[in-house]
Amino acid sequence: MEAFQGFSKDQLLNRKNELIKQYENYKSQNLKLDMSRGKPCTEQLDLSNGMFDYSKNLFTEDGADCRNYGFLDGIKEAKALFAKIFNRSADELIIGGNSSLNLMYDLIAKAFNHGLNGFEKPWSKLSKIKFLCPCPGYDRHFAITELFGVEMIVIPMTNEGPDMDTVEALTAGDETIKGIWCIPKYSNPTGITYSDSVVKRLASMKTKAKDFIIMWDNAYALHDLYDTPDRLTDIFDEARKSGNPNRVYMFSSTSKVTFSGGGLALMASSKENIAHLKKLLAIQTIGYNKINMLLHTRFLKDPEHTKAHMKKHAAIIRPKFEAVLEILDKHLAGKGIASWNKPNGGYFISLNVLEGCADRTVKLAKEAGVTLTPAGATYPYGKDPYDSNIRIAPTYPPISELRMAIEVLCVCAEIAALEKKLA
Amino acid sequence: MEAFQGFSKDQLLNRKNELIKQYENYKSQNLKLDMSRGKPCTEQLDLSNGMFDYSKNLFTEDGADCRNYGFLDGIKEAKALFAKIFNRSADELIIGGNSSLNLMYDLIAKAFNHGLNGFEKPWSKLSKIKFLCPCPGYDRHFAITELFGVEMIVIPMTNEGPDMDTVEALTAGDETIKGIWCIPKYSNPTGITYSDSVVKRLASMKTKAKDFIIMWDNAYALHDLYDTPDRLTDIFDEARKSGNPNRVYMFSSTSKVTFSGGGLALMASSKENIAHLKKLLAIQTIGYNKINMLLHTRFLKDPEHTKAHMKKHAAIIRPKFEAVLEILDKHLAGKGIASWNKPNGGYFISLNVLEGCADRTVKLAKEAGVTLTPAGATYPYGKDPYDSNIRIAPTYPPISELRMAIEVLCVCAEIAALEKKLA
Repeated sequence: MEAFQGFSKDQLLNRKNELIKQYENYKSQNLKLDMSRGKPCTEQLDLSNGMFDYSKNLFTEDGADCRNYGFLDGIKEAKALFAKIFNRSADELIIGGNSSLNLMYDLIAKAFNHGLNGFEKPWSKLSKIKFLCPCPGYDRHFAITELFGVEMIVIPMTNEGPDMDTVEALTAGDETIKGIWCIPKYSNPTGITYSDSVVKRLASMKTKAKDFIIMWDNAYALHDLYDTPDRLTDIFDEARKSGNPNRVYMFSSTSKVTFSGGGLALMASSKENIAHLKKLLAIQTIGYNKINMLLHTRFLKDPEHTKAHMKKHAAIIRPKFEAVLEILDKHLAGKGIASWNKPNGGYFISLNVLEGCADRTVKLAKEAGVTLTPAGATYPYGKDPYDSNIRIAPTYPPISELRMAIEVLCVCAEIAALEKKLA
Repeated sequence: MEAFQGFSKDQLLNRKNELIKQYENYKSQNLKLDMSRGKPCTEQLDLSNGMFDYSKNLFTEDGADCRNYGFLDGIKEAKALFAKIFNRSADELIIGGNSSLNLMYDLIAKAFNHGLNGFEKPWSKLSKIKFLCPCPGYDRHFAITELFGVEMIVIPMTNEGPDMDTVEALTAGDETIKGIWCIPKYSNPTGITYSDSVVKRLASMKTKAKDFIIMWDNAYALHDLYDTPDRLTDIFDEARKSGNPNRVYMFSSTSKVTFSGGGLALMASSKENIAHLKKLLAIQTIGYNKINMLLHTRFLKDPEHTKAHMKKHAAIIRPKFEAVLEILDKHLAGKGIASWNKPNGGYFISLNVLEGCADRTVKLAKEAGVTLTPAGATYPYGKDPYDSNIRIAPTYPPISELRMAIEVLCVCAEIAALEKKLA
């Protein structure tokens, strides 16, 4: 659908004047609304305050003292809990500190410095390393590979995940393509979950590089908004069946389950990969915070209790997602100037404004006191080739502020579209 | 003094038989004593259990929510506390996770991958990197540089610190020497504190490498055993005065102040170095556990209160150190077969047995059920060129077990010496 199809130039000019009045009105209110990061809100964080009630005894079930040294890859009960949640065995897991992003950075750093399991050479010894980056995607993934000098190749996202025809063609023919960044469930920011077919193709595809890895950031594994959640196929099973058991490294955390400022991160891979990593980890650290592991495990208890806990999160943030969708629908639907997803979970709504208008929209919003994630952030090097994608993070602001911010955003997106149309 | 000076061969044979009887007697007791790691004991860990009483409110003084994202380099009050303790300013500090070893590994990894502040090139782009390793030293330092392929050069330790004549001669003439590992206060394992002159020479010496760094592991800064503690000269002041403001990176942690399994690590350097590191850190992690920072800061309160807390540690472990010294004195003094230090703080007693006898001594002890740190561990690549040094870690075992273990150790050290003498 073309933008503003069927409207005359005069009609568009009138509409623009009308919107500019609204915009000036917003500006005069001296708003200060920050929508830039996917942060839990205070009510969500309050859900886990009870964790510290478990701090009276800091010994594991086996009698190990979590206050002392030891247990490099995590305490037994924490491994047992996350093994159940992620359908892995304990020796396929490492329980880390509070940041899964840090575990991802560490893995890439180890791939460069020392090489991972099965590598012929560390990547630092090779002249060129490329990564596939399904886009729009997560800026902090791209920042890691950029820091290590990796050339990033944009892969279009479909409603089922990365465009697999492109992924397969590239990985089959180019030995310097060493990996792909994936957020397979409730993807950041598009909210889609990879289809069964996409997961199978990723797990089984032929790659020219023998040291090709999948960075499987399962950040939103538990973050359903509704009682009929998306289902993600188990990529480890598929990789094993296809003869690629060591291809996948999975990451997750409780940053948006318990505390973003003091959660638990974890990673999973094949037993062989984890054994190799543990040897390096023994040199890297004395081990991660085991008291935090124990408190988390006691608080979250088991997969069922964890699921019930996540329903409390959903009850708080679902109305926020729905408010955003309602306002986008009211102001932007049917005009041919924007499209967006309706996610079943995760932390984001991905808004695509008229091509060439994202940066202008974000700037207009900023001038009216509404801070959004910078346009382009969802692409490598911060450059959206269509200048179209805007990531909306609805969870943090109170709903009244959120509604106001999205009202402003809609006005800005339409002004930007009109400016382009009338130029 | 020569070993067993003035004793006839018969006398030595008799003595050996006598000791072997004692040794067999120990063996028959099926001892299981582990002296291998410098771990705090349960009573020490109990000193900090009160920390979780501060978990009711997880907001900083400024009202920032420690449960949420933000504050990459640490919360304000944690920085304020450690700034006072280490005589730094807040912008010269990063508060990390629970492992200072991890911060050291990270710094070396960053030096290789990205380069530190002022580097012309990351070290991974250079063909040869060497590090100076004062010995006996800390095995986990050496393991990090070994993992990165660094060639390690043994520097003898004197009673004032590393032999500075050797250090200065080497660093002045060899551009590939890029750093030195130091534990400047109550050094692991020798227990000595670097003299004023050694600190000044390290800070001011000419180095051929412009990217020479001092890894200043101030692990035992607070760990005095007596009321008349060793004093360490401030190396940052000296480095600044000498025109080398960016040479020193300091590390410390509360692993042996609060909890080894959930403490706080920190690093300090020049403002310029820290600013450079923060840029890299922003890509590496979402930030460290801020809840743990807040709990620690509230629990430790201020430098005076922290010092009082450390006196409680000293009261628990001082008798253990003194028991070891008493038994070593009783059994090994005056025989010319062993020497050891009497530290004013830290976690170790460093025992030098007769040259060529450390490995044999540790093996004999192991067979009698007493596990010690492996001989050689205090040297790079685990190779003590004199096969002489044994690290004793007195803090963890109950005093009765500790006494028994040291009795066994003394018998083993003397048997090994007699075996050598009689061979």
